[in-house]
Amino acid sequence: MQTFFSEEHRKHFPQAELSGGQFVTPYERPSRVEYILRRLNERGFDTPIAPQTPDMTVLRGLCDPGYLEFLETCWDEWVAEGMAGEIIAGNFPARRMQISRPPRNIDGKVGYYSLASETAITAGTWEAALSSMASAQAAQRAVAAGARAAFALCRPPGHHATADMYGGYCFINNAAIVAQMFRDQGAGRVAVLDIDFHHGNGTQDIFYGRGDVFFASLHGAPEDAFPYYLGYADETGAGDGEGANVNYPMAPGTPYAPWAEALEDALARIRAYGAEALVVSLGVDAYKDDPISFFKLDSPDFMDAGRRIAKLGLPTVFCMEGGYAIEAVGINTVNVLEGFNGA
Amino acid sequence: MQTFFSEEHRKHFPQAELSGGQFVTPYERPSRVEYILRRLNERGFDTPIAPQTPDMTVLRGLCDPGYLEFLETCWDEWVAEGMAGEIIAGNFPARRMQISRPPRNIDGKVGYYSLASETAITAGTWEAALSSMASAQAAQRAVAAGARAAFALCRPPGHHATADMYGGYCFINNAAIVAQMFRDQGAGRVAVLDIDFHHGNGTQDIFYGRGDVFFASLHGAPEDAFPYYLGYADETGAGDGEGANVNYPMAPGTPYAPWAEALEDALARIRAYGAEALVVSLGVDAYKDDPISFFKLDSPDFMDAGRRIAKLGLPTVFCMEGGYAIEAVGINTVNVLEGFNGA
Ligand SMILES: [Zn+2]
Ligand SMILES: [Zn+2]
Repeated sequence: MQTFFSEEHRKHFPQAELSGGQFVTPYERPSRVEYILRRLNERGFDTPIAPQTPDMTVLRGLCDPGYLEFLETCWDEWVAEGMAGEIIAGNFPARRMQISRPPRNIDGKVGYYSLASETAITAGTWEAALSSMASAQAAQRAVAAGARAAFALCRPPGHHATADMYGGYCFINNAAIVAQMFRDQGAGRVAVLDIDFHHGNGTQDIFYGRGDVFFASLHGAPEDAFPYYLGYADETGAGDGEGANVNYPMAPGTPYAPWAEALEDALARIRAYGAEALVVSLGVDAYKDDPISFFKLDSPDFMDAGRRIAKLGLPTVFCMEGGYAIEAVGINTVNVLEGFNGA
Repeated sequence: MQTFFSEEHRKHFPQAELSGGQFVTPYERPSRVEYILRRLNERGFDTPIAPQTPDMTVLRGLCDPGYLEFLETCWDEWVAEGMAGEIIAGNFPARRMQISRPPRNIDGKVGYYSLASETAITAGTWEAALSSMASAQAAQRAVAAGARAAFALCRPPGHHATADMYGGYCFINNAAIVAQMFRDQGAGRVAVLDIDFHHGNGTQDIFYGRGDVFFASLHGAPEDAFPYYLGYADETGAGDGEGANVNYPMAPGTPYAPWAEALEDALARIRAYGAEALVVSLGVDAYKDDPISFFKLDSPDFMDAGRRIAKLGLPTVFCMEGGYAIEAVGINTVNVLEGFNGA
């Protein structure tokens, strides 16, 4: 399986994450990918290929134009306004406030286009997010050209980002971009399977009203885990998308057996749906020692999960999402890919 | 004019405010009231009276029970969860997320019940907020008993707080409590006039669907100023409240002349409405040197504003809100009261 990866990810290197009322060193940090690259190499995977320049057309088709302009210009505006720190949201359109009037002031714009305040934007965030998307796009093209599967080693991750909001370390929803590319190239139905510990609220939100992209997510129950306000089992899609969204919220301490049962159910649903291509939001923060999560998967479980996913027999693009138990991230991520390859 | 004031305000003394991507010493700090107390004394006002214990009945009638329970218990839950800093919201129900399912996790609850992430909650915040409300209640009772006016030197302030969210340095909406007390005691119609630089989004939100409390706010335009997502001129009330809400958003650099014109318009609207009692959300951050605001009022302008308000001839309770140009806060606040007294 070919890996696609851009060194440009380093341009997104925030120093601060708001956590527990303090600034901590961000869990989502550049070194995460180093562990994955090393493990890929140890296990004999081909050398990662750097992607071409990003294709902006699909991005512009999927996202709010004001949001994309914001991502591109916010750092300069922030600095011009004399702000001393990195960009962190200090306010937001709370319930019953205006949600269709973006402010002119940069501090207000930041709140308007964010869905959480833990995630910092820095000088290079936009370029890094584009390079991450470019890796996802290159992986999609490799699969469209006939590869059984490809791995986009995306950083920053994407599954929390909506068409108009960043947060949860995510800015551009890479998995959604890949799903849309499959659709644009003629696949009638596409599925996104999100196995990251956190609910893929961004992906769900983007496709919630559409019947042509199925979304399934296994995650910590929203009552107990970020993003807290989406990911309930009764969120099944709306309008044309009714029935094309399935959530598997699970309780703190969930071990592999019930998680694998949920995975099998999701795979059965994707099979029944008739997907012609699969996008996997590959987070490995379901790992037992992940510092910000609460499932109890062990490293061999990730290999088993990869084997199960492979049995769908679909052209598959893996997009890297979360995973914060730094050293184990490499092993667990590559275990999924090896399980998939060996099946 | 009698002042009501509780020393308990000191129990709310956060060390951190999220501003410009950094933690800064909060603009809303205990010393603000010291300048007001000193000026009141200098100008011959009577010694402030400490309020009795707070009346919880009106509070429970006005607020979401889950929100009040949250305010009372959040600090202990936060500490029990092992959080190291003060309580600061790191997430929130963004648009298109669930807004009627409060999470179980304390980190999620904080986001659910907040409308901004600049405001920290500490060990004593709940007690301080209750003492602030108690001052407002004591002032209301003094006016109900026959005084022409009374001054509630409230800290923390209240006008940004809704029935279910804190933020903008506010936890309990003191002005709304006072308005409700006038109603409960038999006043047919009550008006709240908010002259703080910031839009009184909480007060507007609480009474937006009601015709028995009129709300008027003079403030920095939401495109340019916190709270950014409410305070537009076309927000005129809903249902029974249609026509009982009026906003005067004004541009950066607005000096006293147009501000006074807006004030006269608001006063005319309140007169026409037929209010029997008046609550003034008295912020003095419209002052030209306020560090977080952008109007250009000078100190004598506040005295003139007080004179104009007095001409309504209504029983009036002043509730202290914002004002952050520390030394000038005393002069400007007392100027409003002296202007009112002398009219
Ligand atoms: Zn995650
Ligand atoms: Zn203010």
